[in-house]
Amino acid sequence: MSTPAIITVAITGSQPTKAQNPAVPTQPAEQIESTHEAFEAGASLVHIHVRDDQDRSCSDVEKFRQVQEGIAKHCPGMIIQFSTGGRGREASERGAALSLKPDMGSLATGSVNFATIIYENPPQLIDELANDMIKFDVKPECELFDLAMLYNAKVLVDRGLLKSPPHVQFVLGIPGALPAREKIVDFMLEELTELMPTATWTAAAIGRLQLDANHWALKRGGHVRT
Amino acid sequence: MSTPAIITVAITGSQPTKAQNPAVPTQPAEQIESTHEAFEAGASLVHIHVRDDQDRSCSDVEKFRQVQEGIAKHCPGMIIQFSTGGRGREASERGAALSLKPDMGSLATGSVNFATIIYENPPQLIDELANDMIKFDVKPECELFDLAMLYNAKVLVDRGLLKSPPHVQFVLGIPGALPAREKIVDFMLEELTELMPTATWTAAAIGRLQLDANHWALKRGGHVRT
Ligand SMILES: [Zn+2]
Ligand SMILES: [Zn+2]
Ligand SMILES: [Zn+2]
Ligand SMILES: [Zn+2]
Repeated sequence: MSTPAIITVAITGSQPTKAQNPAVPTQPAEQIESTHEAFEAGASLVHIHVRDDQDRSCSDVEKFRQVQEGIAKHCPGMIIQFSTGGRGREASERGAALSLKPDMGSLATGSVNFATIIYENPPQLIDELANDMIKFDVKPECELFDLAMLYNAKVLVDRGLLKSPPHVQFVLGIPGALPAREKIVDFMLEELTELMPTATWTAAAIGRLQLDANHWALKRGGHVRT
Repeated sequence: MSTPAIITVAITGSQPTKAQNPAVPTQPAEQIESTHEAFEAGASLVHIHVRDDQDRSCSDVEKFRQVQEGIAKHCPGMIIQFSTGGRGREASERGAALSLKPDMGSLATGSVNFATIIYENPPQLIDELANDMIKFDVKPECELFDLAMLYNAKVLVDRGLLKSPPHVQFVLGIPGALPAREKIVDFMLEELTELMPTATWTAAAIGRLQLDANHWALKRGGHVRT
């Protein structure tokens, strides 16, 4: 038997609004219920973004706290991962909810273009978030939106800012960043295996290639995100 | 016989100051002379950054004009390439010297971390510079500091913003961006050949792996930069 794959659910992205998709859960009660459904369907890890009362992407600690509390109560044993993303927000704001000690936190290890903007993760911010994750005992999921971010993760391990074994996610399909190509998964996996042989990994694609990416990951022994 | 390789010389980067390295040519007269020496030694393409009177990196059109004029006079037939780089500077400023119609202009097709900063090339700026290069008949050299930039170049070709055959340079060895690994050259070349089979290419490494990168490129039929 191989290690069972962890199925991740990302209940709320940073992007779609209620206006664009009325089904997207944006407030804690909805997010908790939506996670509960995924949990009952077999998901074991939830990746959380929060929204303010106007449904705009935010990093509000109180919102994270409510979602965390509800999921812990309704979905015993589920791994809770907070997003530290936040286009245009400050490092201090993006990492503030790590003090709530979620099981995991996302950590983008570089900067890249996203459609019409730069997804800004300057080196100082990465170091600060990595440090906070060590301080609050939060396991990072390194989000690799481009190839250099893989080598940057290795540098963090070497500098003692990322504990071994690291966990990484190849994120494909965002315009401006890496497209969803199976060859990219193969190459990144080869490099990961050479440079961080104990790392665990997963692959996610945004949009219509999501299922393909799950398949590419499962075939190669990785975890999946829905 | 294979196509003779083009040897590029980058006479002045955006980084070292006279204080750090007194030998770095920073003003037009020095830059012209330094290019002339490289030309006599066999270089056929010069990549140009300019500095203001305090030797700080800038995009001053008059400086570009002086260097261009001097090189055209002293180095007949040499290909002149202007940098459109410029950390922290506006698009309009970064592309202003393209109106001087140099033979080529550099075009970074994405954003990435560089050591302590983000090298910011937001999508709108890339489009604007690409448009200007078409308008002024300047051939772009796509600077690929990370893998996604290769696919972004392909998207520019598909959108008619980059003429075929495109020319790309794999730039390796900048901390935060792609490291100087031969495997990366192989993978990027494989992807380039599949997606843009008519493209010409070169590889450059910053720092001590410069000669290795030249060797990797020459072995695979690419051009080199010193
Ligand atoms: Zn429930
Ligand atoms: Zn996220
Ligand atoms: Zn001379
Ligand atoms: Zn340059």
